[in-house]
Amino acid sequence: MNNEIKDILTAVQEGRMTIEDAVLEIRKAPYEDIGYAKPDTHRRLRQGAAEVIYGAGKTTEQIRGIVSVMLEQRQSPILITRVSSEAAEELKSGIDMKYYPEARLCIVGQMPEKSGLGKILVATGGTSDIPVAEEAAVTAEFYGNEVVRLYDVGVAGLHRLLGHLDELMSASVVIAIAGMEGALASVIGGLVDCPVIAVPTSVGYGASFEGLSALLSMMNSCAAGVSVVNIDNGFGAGFLANRINHMEAR
Amino acid sequence: MNNEIKDILTAVQEGRMTIEDAVLEIRKAPYEDIGYAKPDTHRRLRQGAAEVIYGAGKTTEQIRGIVSVMLEQRQSPILITRVSSEAAEELKSGIDMKYYPEARLCIVGQMPEKSGLGKILVATGGTSDIPVAEEAAVTAEFYGNEVVRLYDVGVAGLHRLLGHLDELMSASVVIAIAGMEGALASVIGGLVDCPVIAVPTSVGYGASFEGLSALLSMMNSCAAGVSVVNIDNGFGAGFLANRINHMEAR
Amino acid sequence: MNNEIKDILTAVQEGRMTIEDAVLEIRKAPYEDIGYAKPDTHRRLRQGAAEVIYGAGKTTEQIRGIVSVMLEQRQSPILITRVSSEAAEELKSGIDMKYYPEARLCIVGQMPEKSGLGKILVATGGTSDIPVAEEAAVTAEFYGNEVVRLYDVGVAGLHRLLGHLDELMSASVVIAIAGMEGALASVIGGLVDCPVIAVPTSVGYGASFEGLSALLSMMNSCAAGVSVVNIDNGFGAGFLANRINHMEAR
Amino acid sequence: MNNEIKDILTAVQEGRMTIEDAVLEIRKAPYEDIGYAKPDTHRRLRQGAAEVIYGAGKTTEQIRGIVSVMLEQRQSPILITRVSSEAAEELKSGIDMKYYPEARLCIVGQMPEKSGLGKILVATGGTSDIPVAEEAAVTAEFYGNEVVRLYDVGVAGLHRLLGHLDELMSASVVIAIAGMEGALASVIGGLVDCPVIAVPTSVGYGASFEGLSALLSMMNSCAAGVSVVNIDNGFGAGFLANRINHMEAR
Amino acid sequence: MNNEIKDILTAVQEGRMTIEDAVLEIRKAPYEDIGYAKPDTHRRLRQGAAEVIYGAGKTTEQIRGIVSVMLEQRQSPILITRVSSEAAEELKSGIDMKYYPEARLCIVGQMPEKSGLGKILVATGGTSDIPVAEEAAVTAEFYGNEVVRLYDVGVAGLHRLLGHLDELMSASVVIAIAGMEGALASVIGGLVDCPVIAVPTSVGYGASFEGLSALLSMMNSCAAGVSVVNIDNGFGAGFLANRINHMEAR
Amino acid sequence: MNNEIKDILTAVQEGRMTIEDAVLEIRKAPYEDIGYAKPDTHRRLRQGAAEVIYGAGKTTEQIRGIVSVMLEQRQSPILITRVSSEAAEELKSGIDMKYYPEARLCIVGQMPEKSGLGKILVATGGTSDIPVAEEAAVTAEFYGNEVVRLYDVGVAGLHRLLGHLDELMSASVVIAIAGMEGALASVIGGLVDCPVIAVPTSVGYGASFEGLSALLSMMNSCAAGVSVVNIDNGFGAGFLANRINHMEAR
Amino acid sequence: MNNEIKDILTAVQEGRMTIEDAVLEIRKAPYEDIGYAKPDTHRRLRQGAAEVIYGAGKTTEQIRGIVSVMLEQRQSPILITRVSSEAAEELKSGIDMKYYPEARLCIVGQMPEKSGLGKILVATGGTSDIPVAEEAAVTAEFYGNEVVRLYDVGVAGLHRLLGHLDELMSASVVIAIAGMEGALASVIGGLVDCPVIAVPTSVGYGASFEGLSALLSMMNSCAAGVSVVNIDNGFGAGFLANRINHMEAR
Amino acid sequence: MNNEIKDILTAVQEGRMTIEDAVLEIRKAPYEDIGYAKPDTHRRLRQGAAEVIYGAGKTTEQIRGIVSVMLEQRQSPILITRVSSEAAEELKSGIDMKYYPEARLCIVGQMPEKSGLGKILVATGGTSDIPVAEEAAVTAEFYGNEVVRLYDVGVAGLHRLLGHLDELMSASVVIAIAGMEGALASVIGGLVDCPVIAVPTSVGYGASFEGLSALLSMMNSCAAGVSVVNIDNGFGAGFLANRINHMEAR
Repeated sequence: MNNEIKDILTAVQEGRMTIEDAVLEIRKAPYEDIGYAKPDTHRRLRQGAAEVIYGAGKTTEQIRGIVSVMLEQRQSPILITRVSSEAAEELKSGIDMKYYPEARLCIVGQMPEKSGLGKILVATGGTSDIPVAEEAAVTAEFYGNEVVRLYDVGVAGLHRLLGHLDELMSASVVIAIAGMEGALASVIGGLVDCPVIAVPTSVGYGASFEGLSALLSMMNSCAAGVSVVNIDNGFGAGFLANRINHMEAR
Repeated sequence: MNNEIKDILTAVQEGRMTIEDAVLEIRKAPYEDIGYAKPDTHRRLRQGAAEVIYGAGKTTEQIRGIVSVMLEQRQSPILITRVSSEAAEELKSGIDMKYYPEARLCIVGQMPEKSGLGKILVATGGTSDIPVAEEAAVTAEFYGNEVVRLYDVGVAGLHRLLGHLDELMSASVVIAIAGMEGALASVIGGLVDCPVIAVPTSVGYGASFEGLSALLSMMNSCAAGVSVVNIDNGFGAGFLANRINHMEAR
Repeated sequence: MNNEIKDILTAVQEGRMTIEDAVLEIRKAPYEDIGYAKPDTHRRLRQGAAEVIYGAGKTTEQIRGIVSVMLEQRQSPILITRVSSEAAEELKSGIDMKYYPEARLCIVGQMPEKSGLGKILVATGGTSDIPVAEEAAVTAEFYGNEVVRLYDVGVAGLHRLLGHLDELMSASVVIAIAGMEGALASVIGGLVDCPVIAVPTSVGYGASFEGLSALLSMMNSCAAGVSVVNIDNGFGAGFLANRINHMEAR
Repeated sequence: MNNEIKDILTAVQEGRMTIEDAVLEIRKAPYEDIGYAKPDTHRRLRQGAAEVIYGAGKTTEQIRGIVSVMLEQRQSPILITRVSSEAAEELKSGIDMKYYPEARLCIVGQMPEKSGLGKILVATGGTSDIPVAEEAAVTAEFYGNEVVRLYDVGVAGLHRLLGHLDELMSASVVIAIAGMEGALASVIGGLVDCPVIAVPTSVGYGASFEGLSALLSMMNSCAAGVSVVNIDNGFGAGFLANRINHMEAR
Repeated sequence: MNNEIKDILTAVQEGRMTIEDAVLEIRKAPYEDIGYAKPDTHRRLRQGAAEVIYGAGKTTEQIRGIVSVMLEQRQSPILITRVSSEAAEELKSGIDMKYYPEARLCIVGQMPEKSGLGKILVATGGTSDIPVAEEAAVTAEFYGNEVVRLYDVGVAGLHRLLGHLDELMSASVVIAIAGMEGALASVIGGLVDCPVIAVPTSVGYGASFEGLSALLSMMNSCAAGVSVVNIDNGFGAGFLANRINHMEAR
Repeated sequence: MNNEIKDILTAVQEGRMTIEDAVLEIRKAPYEDIGYAKPDTHRRLRQGAAEVIYGAGKTTEQIRGIVSVMLEQRQSPILITRVSSEAAEELKSGIDMKYYPEARLCIVGQMPEKSGLGKILVATGGTSDIPVAEEAAVTAEFYGNEVVRLYDVGVAGLHRLLGHLDELMSASVVIAIAGMEGALASVIGGLVDCPVIAVPTSVGYGASFEGLSALLSMMNSCAAGVSVVNIDNGFGAGFLANRINHMEAR
Repeated sequence: MNNEIKDILTAVQEGRMTIEDAVLEIRKAPYEDIGYAKPDTHRRLRQGAAEVIYGAGKTTEQIRGIVSVMLEQRQSPILITRVSSEAAEELKSGIDMKYYPEARLCIVGQMPEKSGLGKILVATGGTSDIPVAEEAAVTAEFYGNEVVRLYDVGVAGLHRLLGHLDELMSASVVIAIAGMEGALASVIGGLVDCPVIAVPTSVGYGASFEGLSALLSMMNSCAAGVSVVNIDNGFGAGFLANRINHMEAR
Repeated sequence: MNNEIKDILTAVQEGRMTIEDAVLEIRKAPYEDIGYAKPDTHRRLRQGAAEVIYGAGKTTEQIRGIVSVMLEQRQSPILITRVSSEAAEELKSGIDMKYYPEARLCIVGQMPEKSGLGKILVATGGTSDIPVAEEAAVTAEFYGNEVVRLYDVGVAGLHRLLGHLDELMSASVVIAIAGMEGALASVIGGLVDCPVIAVPTSVGYGASFEGLSALLSMMNSCAAGVSVVNIDNGFGAGFLANRINHMEAR
């Protein structure tokens, strides 16, 4: 940002730009305003990641509109989250995209090459947690990571988890996904020496209170190295895992 | 109770008792009324266990009074819970009792012989859970059980727990005590084939919300065979473990 | 487990097994991996109980797949919980099972002979609690227990409960099921001398907050010998009651 | 009120009062303004009960000031609630009052004669609930009611309660006071045919959450005829019980 | 109850009854057992009020069954609560009943004559609270009370309430029904000198949290003489108001 | 009000009005009673704003009835909130109104001229908050304010907000609307020097708990000058913004 | 801000400033960095109000340090909130300040002249709410407003409030402060036609849950024109009231 | 671990080890058992980090005992968290340690050299959050990271944060620490392209509910790349930041 300002100031100094234009330029919004949304067309530059469209609460018309603006700006690939299969059907006509039904994600454009420091392991406590896990896994793949899936390894059958110690130990980042009592995050956190991202899910009933139980449990994990994202937030976990898996010296 | 009624009715039929006395007898309260409390002097008969005095919220005078009534009724041994060391000091003068400072329990009279189907294992997640664990362990001993203590085996260092698999596997009942995320109960519940009594503790800070996190976590345990008692309720767990460890055919 | 390791080590010592095979064998997972689930085919040996399939959140295809794996492994009978009547209809074609509509349970294979130390009594506060009660009762029967049902004996009409004192007093384990204020558990807990498993239900409205009121009430029961499972968790109560009713010396 | 307005209007019509004075009179505040408080000196007329001073959060100086105003207005007897023994000591010098230490109440002036339709029964679940019970009982006595105390009759020993059925059945109003699981209100509510006022108390620990458990439990009582006041609100219960016990035809 | 026992004892003494029969008689349950429910056929005698059927969570078959048992026992009139209009349609065929759609109540048999000490006033904060108010009002009428309805007098337009001071002041009992902030109960409680039963409703949105806001508000009412029943519990309020309005000396 | 009373008193004094009529007049309710509602026909005079009809929980018949009364009283324009598109369709036949589908508002009669001290800026964190924002914006317009809309400027892309500093800085009142973490209110509150009305929305999932997260966040805003209305309460924000934007010396 | 940038750009264009200095100037932080705090020395210009020091959680040394920086920058008067009387004693030595013990505020420098559109009325439900009220009142005075105090006018004695209708009606802004059930805000909101700022207080006990009850109640106020600040946040209310009372056309 | 097992197996195969010794070795617990604690003496090998002693809830005797065991095992440096200044005084005698009073940490042994991919930036919303921040910062330094502190940059004065964009943009990991509304995490999350670890603090009052408000706010952050640890858990944040800052290819 310093550099941009310097460039503009140099242009002013050298008479190549009027003051009015400079003011405008300095304050110019790096986004496109389409009324109901302001898609951020500079984010790839600023944050190293394309804008992601949070699909929930948006009409397919709104999503289509935002995609159009982004494609015009050559923002591709694009990830659209929380898309129902009905909405995906509607979106498909006219946009070249792939739909991942379990993950409820759409991807416009091509998946990138795999890169990163290592593999991201996505583990779930049960079968019912798989949709959240797929959201995390496909998101991580969308950003160019190799993903290992390890599903239904909840702590009620500890040997299922311990039987995969090698995969756990060799992962670069682990995403631990569980509902109900959420103990998976603590157990994995105590076994591995890499960052663990815990995702509570709303799987369960009664005193799980829609994921609150798992959230609190993960929050209180006695294992260090564990941090938590929102209930059912597979996307957030995959996004953060990508960042960590692509760490480099600065 | 049927038998008692029968005896009374027979006495009436045989003219050995007036109707008024019979009415009185049938409705007679099987407890001693000392105003501020009504210690239950029949409980040993009715429930196979002496009355326990819940010490919290009672003055030492009140406790002393209740103990006196019970001793007069030959109710011994007596267990007094939640007694601070100061209160214990006061109580000791005049009553022949032993104080267990970590457990904050007083026992009047002799500990019974060990009996029961097997051993009761008391496990804690951390060092800070030990007071609750001792309340459970000494209570179980008070009722005549052999107790194995396994402290500081929280899931953040799973090998500490797994290193004691033999003791876990051979226990008759396990009491799993943990604060923070309470995952210990689920992990133990998935390993053993005996009843597991989970005790959430108020150990922790922040989002542990004084034990709520552990309580919800244990409540949602995905391992079957686990049930839960109140936060910090070591006594309740020890009492119930005794009942289970003394099950017999009826 | 020690024995298995010893056998393997002996085979290695005697040259009957290579080191590589031994490593493999020691770490071999005692479950079948079918991608979306990892049914535990050793549990009967390890925990004395067949794997149970938690039906909620699984498609009928997934359930069918898990059942197939288990049947191949000669795991039978099988209990499937939380099955809607529609799902049961679908599952019935091709699998030989019996559906219990009130309990929403499917059982594949034969019910075992009745055994155990005594009878398990299942009591409910009201008529609306019966589905949870049936889940508990049929589960207990699935594991070979004799069950006595005592429904609609809530504390607002105490004589209904007191009229069944004999059955209460002679039970080996009592499962007390109630919504709303959940007082049934405390009242029964004060009457009997056997373990009481309390099940809060989501029956009620307003300040029952989907079972929270009953859960807290049961958690705070002033009667010792009471422990609590999750809201509406009839299965968990039946499973635990079976364990307690089959206690034996070890 | 109509009458007062009529009198004023008549005075205006007859020229005995100016319009300005009439406006003033109609809007005149029926209380004394002493800055930090506005004691209501008409309440005895309007609501049939003297002003009560809620002592918590007031300095002894403020309480003394309010009492002075009320005594000047011949408002006596006066009830002061939530007074610590230290504050009571301070207040005693200069004011002629009696202090009830368990109830933490002060009464200035004489207790009235007993009156009312019948007796008010105050029952508690345990010994620790007695301070709240005494607040209720002395309040009821302050308003001229005969009070029967029945303490430590919690549902964990149901026979203690059932042993007093006569007193329960013959009460005009019952105040049921309990902490922990609060089941006492439901059980009493199912036994008697008079109004039951339930008072949750903050007695308990862990999942009692400072009285929340008892409050929710009482709120959800399946027994009709039960209503609830705030946690530890003995005064409110005694005040309402008095109103009900002094009902008359209108 | 004493009398019944006396009669039985006399019969035994006089040889008119065997001991076995006497035991049986003393313990005989005063209810009819129809499996899924145990309607209480003695309640009219014991509590001065017929059994009420809580319709929610019961099938129309179950309701019909309970009604039949009660009619056979000459229990009439009968009140059935929480009946949807569809269920009412089904029930009407074969049972002679009247349905009150706003109150969602059915009444089998005739309404009694009006009696009681005075009128019961039912006030609501808004139009949306009317269904709960009608449940309360019709319940009170079912038990023989004269009811005055005062709807939509919420505190945001205080003059609407103050315009009805006469009716408020002359009521025997007031039922104050409000959702959202529930201030109506406090305001009425400060105006009248009769018992006020507050009913929080689930009317509102956002931070009303399904009635929790109104419940807490009413619970904390600074006006004495106010007690609270469960959210939306119009029946409970009407039932209790009847009891208070029919108080008599004992 | 003083003046009205004075006029009445003068009329009495001058013999132009009887005392009875005067009493009646003074206590006359300034509203129309149509049974299920008491629309306030004086509010325009008293509070400078016409009655608003809260549409939720009212039938279209009830709404139509209230509108009729108000139109007869020449109360126009009328604002009806929380009207679904289906209800709007029904209402349109026979009433001359305009429906704002995003805001779910109906307006009967003409919008007023723009007036006020400045512009009201309505900002949202995301696209999904727009319905609440439109409710606020159209309400403000209904009361005669100029409104600037600034949507989708959530803090995750701070430059989008900062790009509109001029509009923010020059607003008279800002309405900050956001779900999820609700940070928008704090950020705007730290930038502007005018009153900020924060509206939490129920937009979000998981730990947003239907708006609770945003509500607490806004409540705790470290920026002074921010106050909060109920979750999703766009109307309340627009109404209050109007009041502030029309402040004048008194 | 535009102007500042323009000035800098002009200086660059005219060669009076180097590009490096310009970059520096544009990004220069308008605050003083003293390590543990960054007092904002431009706020008076930017927001029309001096920095306020939130005293809670700061040592007297830290406060003294911040005051020094501000005085050096000629930031005066200064308001320091949440200062205990002990801290005030310490601060007084060396700083020329006035301490308001009830409000727990310190003011360095002179109070300004009174100005603004009208008077700010501060009302409380009870005597115990006065500390919060004084924090609000003195804050408002600090910013140059005339304040009217109206204490102990809770809704349990409505005539005390109605007796001050003139003051209420003529206020420019009302701050309604109440604990317990918080009804005061709704009642005042329904009476006045100016903005009402509601402040819940932690006054109360039991189900007031440290102010949560009052907060929810105020949040749900059915009266429009009411907004809410944090529990016990008298400063925030006074600050906002000042802003509203100093509104002017822009 | 595979390798260790292989070594043992080879030793058995080659006759260098008996089977019994091998069984023992394989199951040998890699920790020292000192009764009240089981310090993990292998963790450095297994997880790349020495055991940390959680000081809260441990006596100084217990801490001293654990330190002794670890020093004997050559586990150094050692970090002890949550140590009060009194406890630190006691510990200092006999152990060579440095105490960090603001962070409430003790470090036994030498701080390591700085290493890692970049700098860890620790930012706080206010001055009161500094203790938590120092716990995070010193922890990160203990593990060999360079730390930049940026305190009191809360969003209410956004320019204070924006004035440090360079430091934010160039950090490798950011730890965002804030109480009250916790907006800092979202704002930073939207600015940077590195992982952000959010730490809610218990700083605040009223509706901050001891950190719950900040926790929920951070959990719901609309900025991707943000994850959350427990309230006030500075240690956890520092530990995780170290892991991320030391990521390398595997």
